[in-house]
Amino acid sequence: MTDLQTRAVPATVDRASELLARMTLEEKLAQIVGFWEKGDGEVVAPLQGEFTREQTLDESTRNGLGHLTRVYGTRPVDAVERARWLWDMQRRLVRETRLGIPALVHEECLTGLSAWRAATFPTPLAWGASFDPELVEEMGEAIGGSMRTLGIHQGLSPVLDVIRDPRWGRVDECISEDPYVVGTLGTSYVRGLQSTGVHATLKHFVGYSGSQSGRNFAPVHAGRREVEDVLLVPFEMALLDGGARSVMSSYNEIDGVPVAADPSLLTGVLRDRWGFDGPVVADYFGVAFLQLLHGVAGDLGEAAGLALAAGVDIELPTGDAYLTPLAEAVRAGRVDEALVDRAVLRALRQKEELGLLDATFDDEPPTHVDLDSPEHRRIAARLAEESVVLLSNDGTLPLGGPSRVAVIGPNADRAEALFGCYSFLNHVLAHHPEVEVGFESPTVRAALAAELPGADIVAALGCAVDDDDRSGFDEAVQAAASAEVAVLVVGDHAGLFGRGTVGEGCDRDDLELPGVQRELVEAVLATGTPVVLVLLTGRPYAVDWALARCAAVVQAFFPGEEGGTAVAGVLSGRVNPSGHLPVSLPRSAGAQPFTYLHPQLGGNGDVTNLRSTPALPFGHGLSYTTFVHSDLEVDAQVPTDGHIGASVRVTNTGDRPGADVVQLYARDVVGSVTRPVAQLVGYRRVHLEAGESAVVTFSVPTTRLAFSDRDLVRVVEPGDVELWVGPSCAERDTEARLTLTGAVHPVGVDSPRWTAVSVSA
Amino acid sequence: MTDLQTRAVPATVDRASELLARMTLEEKLAQIVGFWEKGDGEVVAPLQGEFTREQTLDESTRNGLGHLTRVYGTRPVDAVERARWLWDMQRRLVRETRLGIPALVHEECLTGLSAWRAATFPTPLAWGASFDPELVEEMGEAIGGSMRTLGIHQGLSPVLDVIRDPRWGRVDECISEDPYVVGTLGTSYVRGLQSTGVHATLKHFVGYSGSQSGRNFAPVHAGRREVEDVLLVPFEMALLDGGARSVMSSYNEIDGVPVAADPSLLTGVLRDRWGFDGPVVADYFGVAFLQLLHGVAGDLGEAAGLALAAGVDIELPTGDAYLTPLAEAVRAGRVDEALVDRAVLRALRQKEELGLLDATFDDEPPTHVDLDSPEHRRIAARLAEESVVLLSNDGTLPLGGPSRVAVIGPNADRAEALFGCYSFLNHVLAHHPEVEVGFESPTVRAALAAELPGADIVAALGCAVDDDDRSGFDEAVQAAASAEVAVLVVGDHAGLFGRGTVGEGCDRDDLELPGVQRELVEAVLATGTPVVLVLLTGRPYAVDWALARCAAVVQAFFPGEEGGTAVAGVLSGRVNPSGHLPVSLPRSAGAQPFTYLHPQLGGNGDVTNLRSTPALPFGHGLSYTTFVHSDLEVDAQVPTDGHIGASVRVTNTGDRPGADVVQLYARDVVGSVTRPVAQLVGYRRVHLEAGESAVVTFSVPTTRLAFSDRDLVRVVEPGDVELWVGPSCAERDTEARLTLTGAVHPVGVDSPRWTAVSVSA
Repeated sequence: MTDLQTRAVPATVDRASELLARMTLEEKLAQIVGFWEKGDGEVVAPLQGEFTREQTLDESTRNGLGHLTRVYGTRPVDAVERARWLWDMQRRLVRETRLGIPALVHEECLTGLSAWRAATFPTPLAWGASFDPELVEEMGEAIGGSMRTLGIHQGLSPVLDVIRDPRWGRVDECISEDPYVVGTLGTSYVRGLQSTGVHATLKHFVGYSGSQSGRNFAPVHAGRREVEDVLLVPFEMALLDGGARSVMSSYNEIDGVPVAADPSLLTGVLRDRWGFDGPVVADYFGVAFLQLLHGVAGDLGEAAGLALAAGVDIELPTGDAYLTPLAEAVRAGRVDEALVDRAVLRALRQKEELGLLDATFDDEPPTHVDLDSPEHRRIAARLAEESVVLLSNDGTLPLGGPSRVAVIGPNADRAEALFGCYSFLNHVLAHHPEVEVGFESPTVRAALAAELPGADIVAALGCAVDDDDRSGFDEAVQAAASAEVAVLVVGDHAGLFGRGTVGEGCDRDDLELPGVQRELVEAVLATGTPVVLVLLTGRPYAVDWALARCAAVVQAFFPGEEGGTAVAGVLSGRVNPSGHLPVSLPRSAGAQPFTYLHPQLGGNGDVTNLRSTPALPFGHGLSYTTFVHSDLEVDAQVPTDGHIGASVRVTNTGDRPGADVVQLYARDVVGSVTRPVAQLVGYRRVHLEAGESAVVTFSVPTTRLAFSDRDLVRVVEPGDVELWVGPSCAERDTEARLTLTGAVHPVGVDSPRWTAVSVSA
Repeated sequence: MTDLQTRAVPATVDRASELLARMTLEEKLAQIVGFWEKGDGEVVAPLQGEFTREQTLDESTRNGLGHLTRVYGTRPVDAVERARWLWDMQRRLVRETRLGIPALVHEECLTGLSAWRAATFPTPLAWGASFDPELVEEMGEAIGGSMRTLGIHQGLSPVLDVIRDPRWGRVDECISEDPYVVGTLGTSYVRGLQSTGVHATLKHFVGYSGSQSGRNFAPVHAGRREVEDVLLVPFEMALLDGGARSVMSSYNEIDGVPVAADPSLLTGVLRDRWGFDGPVVADYFGVAFLQLLHGVAGDLGEAAGLALAAGVDIELPTGDAYLTPLAEAVRAGRVDEALVDRAVLRALRQKEELGLLDATFDDEPPTHVDLDSPEHRRIAARLAEESVVLLSNDGTLPLGGPSRVAVIGPNADRAEALFGCYSFLNHVLAHHPEVEVGFESPTVRAALAAELPGADIVAALGCAVDDDDRSGFDEAVQAAASAEVAVLVVGDHAGLFGRGTVGEGCDRDDLELPGVQRELVEAVLATGTPVVLVLLTGRPYAVDWALARCAAVVQAFFPGEEGGTAVAGVLSGRVNPSGHLPVSLPRSAGAQPFTYLHPQLGGNGDVTNLRSTPALPFGHGLSYTTFVHSDLEVDAQVPTDGHIGASVRVTNTGDRPGADVVQLYARDVVGSVTRPVAQLVGYRRVHLEAGESAVVTFSVPTTRLAFSDRDLVRVVEPGDVELWVGPSCAERDTEARLTLTGAVHPVGVDSPRWTAVSVSA
C-alpha cells in the first residue's frame, strides 16, 4: 500500500489532503458515491431492479455527498425549477454537513445535454460521417455552455468505444470503426465541452464494443495487442491531447478479467503510462456487477475492494458497494483504507479544480435559460447537413421539381426517429411513453414539404419500425403509384433495454431492416415508381439489396433536431451531400464481426468461399458533384521517427459547389506482426466551388503507423509503406510509395498522435 | 543461438547428430521438406497455384528427402500398385543418395486412411456425439494398421481445434466445442493410431477455429487466457497423455502474430513447458504464407527463417521456402544454420524412432491389401450407431411398420453425403468430379429399404443440396402426400475451397440449411404427412423451426460408410439412438460466435434483448427409452490439489435397452477471473437394460477446474463449486455443492488431466 499512498499523496499537503485528514470513514465514503433522486419506476441502467436499497435524501447526504446523479435528465421537468431544487440541495450540503462540501453534479450529454427542451444534436455516427472535428468542437462547447448554466459539472460523454460489430445496440452511441476518427472527433468534443469548464468523461474504458457476437455485456475476446492498438487509441488521444478530466470504467470483461477490476488498465495504462490524475467513475452499478454478473467477488464488499484497488474511484449512480459494504470491509481489515483515501483525494481534487471547495451557492440559480438557442440550432443544422451520406444515386437525386412526391415509412413523420437512444427524448420515452415531451423538430416529411413548396406531398405510414403489421402497405403502394418519386424513410427506433431496435440493450442478431420495413420497400419498388430510400438508423444495416434496386439511398444515421431539414435539403438539392461512411456497410449479420482494419484475409476465393468485402466500404460517400484526386506526392524516404509529407490535388470536376473529404490511407507492407490492408492516416474536409481545385498537404507523424510489436512495445518499423487517396478505403485514385528508414522507433506518450493537414488553392 | 543448440544437441552424440555432422547444407534442407508427386491439376491446399515452381522427382531427391507427401491420397489408384512405386522410390533413396536415408511417408487419415477403397469412418463431430473414447481408439488402431501396411509412417490427424463458431467450414473436421471432449477423444485417436507404430499429427496448433466470423484464415481475436484455457487444452492432453509424436502448426494468426512464426507457442509452450521433442510440421504452404498472406516476411527466405526460429521443423508439402530461399538466407548469414540443424535433428530422430534409418526396403511391398475389412466395417457401424443424435421426437420414431414411406431429399440416396471433406471420396470428387470412385456404402434410402422390407419406399430427390432449382418439389410433395411418413434427408455436401457447403474453405455467413432445402422441408410439411428430418451435416445448423414442426429430427453429422445403415437402424428402431450433441445447436449465424462455455451473460433480458441460449444445448440427445439421474453425492470438502469424488445413479426407466451418456457438469461460483456457467468435468457412456440402474462414480481431479489466473498462472482456487448431472449442460436432474479448501493450487504439466469414471450396478 505504500506505493499507492506515495503516488496519491504528494509531500506537500494540499487542501484536499487536509480535508481528507479530517474525515471519518463515513465522510470519506460519502465523497465517492452518488445519490439519485428519482421518480417512481424509472429504469435507467441494466439490472437496476437488483438494487433495492432505498435511502432517503437526508440519510444519503448526512455525511456529505460525492455526486448528484442525473438531476435533469430523466424526466421532463422545467430546467429553471430543477435548478432551484439543485441550488437548495447544494446550499444544504454546504451549510448543513460537517465539512460543507457541495456535490459534483453529473449528467448525460452525448447528443446534447439530456434535459427537457435542450438541443439535440446529431448522434456520434453522424459526427463520424461529417469528418469535421472543428464542428464537433463547436457542438461540444454549445453543450457545455448549457450544462454550466444549470450547475452541472461533469458530462458522461463522449463514448470512445471503437465500433467492432454493428450488431451491438450501443453502436448508436459510437463514432466510427476507425480509432483515429474516434480519437480526433472525440478529442474535439472534449475540447469543446471542457472549454466551458465542464468536465468530460471518456467512456467506456475499455473494450466494451468488442463484446462477443455484438451482445451487450458479453465477454470480449481480444488479445492485448488489439486492446492497445485499436481500443485504447481514442482514449489516449482524448486524454493526452484533449486533456479529458474523467474516465468511466466499462462493464465488460476482456479475456476473463472485468475491466472494473483490472489494475493493469485502470492504473497501469491510465495513470502510470498516461499520467491521468482525475477520477475514474464506475459505469452505473458496474461495481456491484463484479459480484452479480462477473462472479469475481463473493459479496459487495469484495466487489468494492476489487474496484477500488483497480482504480475505480467513484461508484455511480449510488453507493451500493462503496457505502455500507465497503465500510464493513475496511473495518474488517479486508480492504485497506489507503485505497479509500486514494479515491477520496481524487474526488476532492476534482471538486477543488471545479471550484466546488469554495462554492457557497449564495448566488441565485438561473431564472431563464434557453437550452436550444438559434446558435445551437445552427450548429445542429450544419452538422446534420455534413453528416448525410449519399450511398447511391442513379441521378434521381436531387429531386428537381417533382409535382407529386410520396413520403412513406415509419420514420418519415416521427420526430423521435431523428434521435439516438441517449437523447433526452428517447431516454424518457423508452420508460414513459405516456409522457408528453414537447419539442420542435421538423420531420423529414414536414421539412420536405417546406423544401418543395410546389409539390403535392402524399404521405403514408406503410408500417411501424418493428412489428409485423402489413396493413398499411396498400396505402403506401397506392401513394407511390400515384407519385413521380417515392421517398421512403425507414430505419430504427432508438430505445433502451430491449425497448427499441437500436440503443443500449437493443442488440440484433440479424442486420436486415427491423420488422417488415424491407418488405415495405420492396412492395413500393414493385410499383415501378423510383424509390429514394432514406435510412434513419443507429447502426449500418445490410441494405445491399436496396443499393441495387433503389434510385438512390441516403444514410442519415440519427441527424438530430435539424436533421429532418438537413435530409430534406439533400433530397431537394439545397444541400449537396458530403458525409462519408464512418463504418463499413455490412453484407449480413453472419459476416460479423468485421471492420475495414483487417489484415489480408486471403485472396481470390481460394481460402474461403465468402466475400471478404462489405456491401460498401468505410469512407464511401457520393456528392451531386464529382471530385478527382490526383498527383499524390510523398517523400521517398522518411526516418522512422519523422513525419511523412504528402500532398494531393483534389478537383471539383462537376458543375456545382460541394465538399469532399480527402482521405489518405496507408499500408505497411511488411511488419513484425500482421498489419491492416488499409489504415486511415489523415483526412480533411474541403469545400470547393465548381471547377475549383486545391492541394491538401498532410504531415503524418510516422507514429500513426505505430503498432505493438511482439513484445507489446509500441514501435514504428522501417520498411516500405503504400499510400493512397481515394473515395473510400477500398479505392485508389492516386497512390505512392515510400520507405521508412533507420532503426525501429519506440513510441512513447509524448510522440505525436495527430496528422497536420493544410489546404492551399 | 547457444541456447537452441544446447537444447537440441545432447552432450552424448547420437546417431542423428552423427548423420547431421556429415551433411552438406543441401542435404540438411532436403530432410526438412516434402516432395509431392502429383497428377495434373490437383488442388489440395489454398493458394497452391501461387507455388509454380516445379521440380522433377530426380531433382527433388538428389540430396535425399524428408517427406513423401500424400502418396496414396489424392487419386483413385490401386494401393498395391502405388505401394510398388513407393517401395521403388524408397529403395532409390536408400541406394542412390549419398546418406541412404529413406523418406518419411505422410498421408491424411482423419476419417480413415485417405486412399482408394479404404474404410471411411464417421467424421469427428460424430466421434464427439458418441462420447465413446474406447471406440475412437479402436478406430484409430484400425486406421493405423492400414497405413502401416502401405508403408505410411505419419498421419496428419487428429484435428484438435476446439469449435468456436459453426460458420467455419472446417468445423466438419472438428470434434466438439468442449476442450475436454476434444482432448479425451483426440487422445484416444492418437493412442489407437500410434499403437500400430504410425505417428499421429496434432493439428492445427493452435487457435485456427477461432477465426473472425468463422472465415477460414481470418485473424483470431483471443487473449492469452482463452488460448491457454480453451484452445491449448486438447493438445496438452494428446501430447502428455496420448504421447503424440508430431504437431502441425496452424495457418492462423492470433492477435497479430502468425502461429507459424510464434516461438512463444511453438517452442515456449510445446517444448519448454510440455517437453515435446518430436518434429513440428507446417500446414501445407504455411511457411510461404508468412510472406504471401500474413505479410510478416518480405521474402521466402525471411519466412523460412521466422518459421524455423519459431519451431516449425519441416515444411510441407514441398520445399518452397526451406530449399533454395533458406539456403540463400543461410549462406547470406540472415538465418543461423544452427536453426536448420535443430530442425534436421528432430527430423532424423523421428526417422530413427520409426526405424527408417535402418530400413533397406529389401522386403517386398504388399501384394494384397484389404483396407476396408469386415472389422473396419464393424467399427464404422458401431461408431455410426452411437453417434446418431435424436434431437426431437413426438413418438413417430421408431417407425414401427409403415406400409408406405417417402424418402426425400438430396442426401437420401447420395453416398457422398455420408462423408466429410477429408474423406478420400470427397477430397477426390471435389477436384475430379469426373472420376469414377468405386465404393460400397448403402445410402439412407437403400438401408431403409433393407430395414423395412415390408414397406413400400417411394423416393424423390426434391432438390440438390445447394442450388435454387425447385423443379423437384412437386414430385417430393406427391411422394410425401401418398405416404404414411416422409423421411427427409437433407444437409451438406462436403467439399473443398468453395466447392461444397461445408469443409475446408466452405464457410457460411448464414446457418440456414444450404440452398432451398428448408423450402423443400416446408413444402413437404405442408402435406400434413409426418416428417422425420434427418440431417447429414458437417456443422450444426439453425433448425429450431424444424424442431417445432417436424415429427422428429435426427442429427447424424457425416456418419461414414456404415452411416446409412446406422441412420436407417435408428429410424426403424433396430438401433436405439444414444448420441449427444458435442456442439450447441445454434439459433442463427447472427448469434455467433457462441459456445456453452461462456461466463454469465446477464439475465432476464435486462442487459440485452436477445436470447443468450442456443436452439438446443450442448449435451442434448434423446433415446427411445428414458433415463433418470438421481442421488448425486459429492464430497463436501475437497482440497484444491485433490480429487472430487462424485457418484450418481442413472436408471433406464423406459421399456427397452439403451445407452445414456452421463454428463457431470460443474460451476466455480466465484473466481479471480470470470468462469463459465457450466463446464463438463466428466462423462460416461452407460448401457442399461430396461429398468436397469447403475451408479456411475467419478473421480474428478480438481485440476479440471483449473484456469489461468490474473498472472496467467494455471491454478485451482478454493471456494464453492456447484455440480450437477442432467440430460444436457442446461438442465439439472440432480445437483450438489462442495467447497474446495486450502490454498490456491498451482497446476503443472504433471497434474492429472483425466476424470476417472467407473460404473457399478
